[in-house]
Amino acid sequence: MIPPTKMTDEPAQVRPASPDDAPDLARMLHDFNVEYEDPTPGTGVLEARVRKFMADRTKWYLVAGDGSRSLGFAQFDFHPSIWSEGPILFLDELYVKPAHRGNGLGKLMMETLRSAAEERGAAGMEVVTGEDDTAARGLYESFGFRNQVEGADDTRALFYELDFSG
Amino acid sequence: MIPPTKMTDEPAQVRPASPDDAPDLARMLHDFNVEYEDPTPGTGVLEARVRKFMADRTKWYLVAGDGSRSLGFAQFDFHPSIWSEGPILFLDELYVKPAHRGNGLGKLMMETLRSAAEERGAAGMEVVTGEDDTAARGLYESFGFRNQVEGADDTRALFYELDFSG
Repeated sequence: MIPPTKMTDEPAQVRPASPDDAPDLARMLHDFNVEYEDPTPGTGVLEARVRKFMADRTKWYLVAGDGSRSLGFAQFDFHPSIWSEGPILFLDELYVKPAHRGNGLGKLMMETLRSAAEERGAAGMEVVTGEDDTAARGLYESFGFRNQVEGADDTRALFYELDFSG
Repeated sequence: MIPPTKMTDEPAQVRPASPDDAPDLARMLHDFNVEYEDPTPGTGVLEARVRKFMADRTKWYLVAGDGSRSLGFAQFDFHPSIWSEGPILFLDELYVKPAHRGNGLGKLMMETLRSAAEERGAAGMEVVTGEDDTAARGLYESFGFRNQVEGADDTRALFYELDFSG
């Protein structure tokens, strides 16, 4: 019998999620927002939405794990662009469980995402992150992402949102 | 016969675009990117994409005009969110021809967009703009948009992109 401690020695892998991952994905989505003090509708609602998005292919999921454990995930979509023939991969969420950060799982997921984008014939990738999230910004910048509006003005691209619920 | 100068006195109106607007929309999209020194595939390619997006309803268009003239437009989509029951209206492009800026056309289009979002049961709206585009930022902020990541940290939300073409 393999002792439990052995589990952590299995190399982490990134794979496309299946419907069986929906409960784990919902739990991680929920924990993600609790950690950042964002509102969350709870794991039941999230799991139903994950299953729906997977089924109708409006959003896509990767799971990072070692053995049977989920250690992180990515949620993304492909949307058309007026400026390019291929779609854009938009990275909605990128999460690694707190105890497993700093082990390169984010980088591993980003590499898989870039490959997925290239296989799909995407023209590029987009993501939004907080100004003070230096770990995320450093990761994205290491892949060549730039926080700039295209064109002559070398100005930062800011993401604005309006929440109708207040 | 109505003299041509009379045309400019007609009040500007905002209306949903039809396929007949595709050539004007392509021209304005092209001019938009030329003005900001962004690459553009040209009006022919843009017109074909506008027609396709309209037909398959992946993107939506509003036209601001007085009489028979197009003075500006908005391009937007609705995409699902894991965090809300309703979709998010993402505003891709908002443009007013240079000679017609400062006349409230942007505000008029934003009001129409907000109504369209509410009618669709959207949970909110999103837009990306340049840090030095104070006119656009002021407009969005006047509608309640905030350039902040949700949650405890009052930190700015930055938009990053990676262009595979270099």
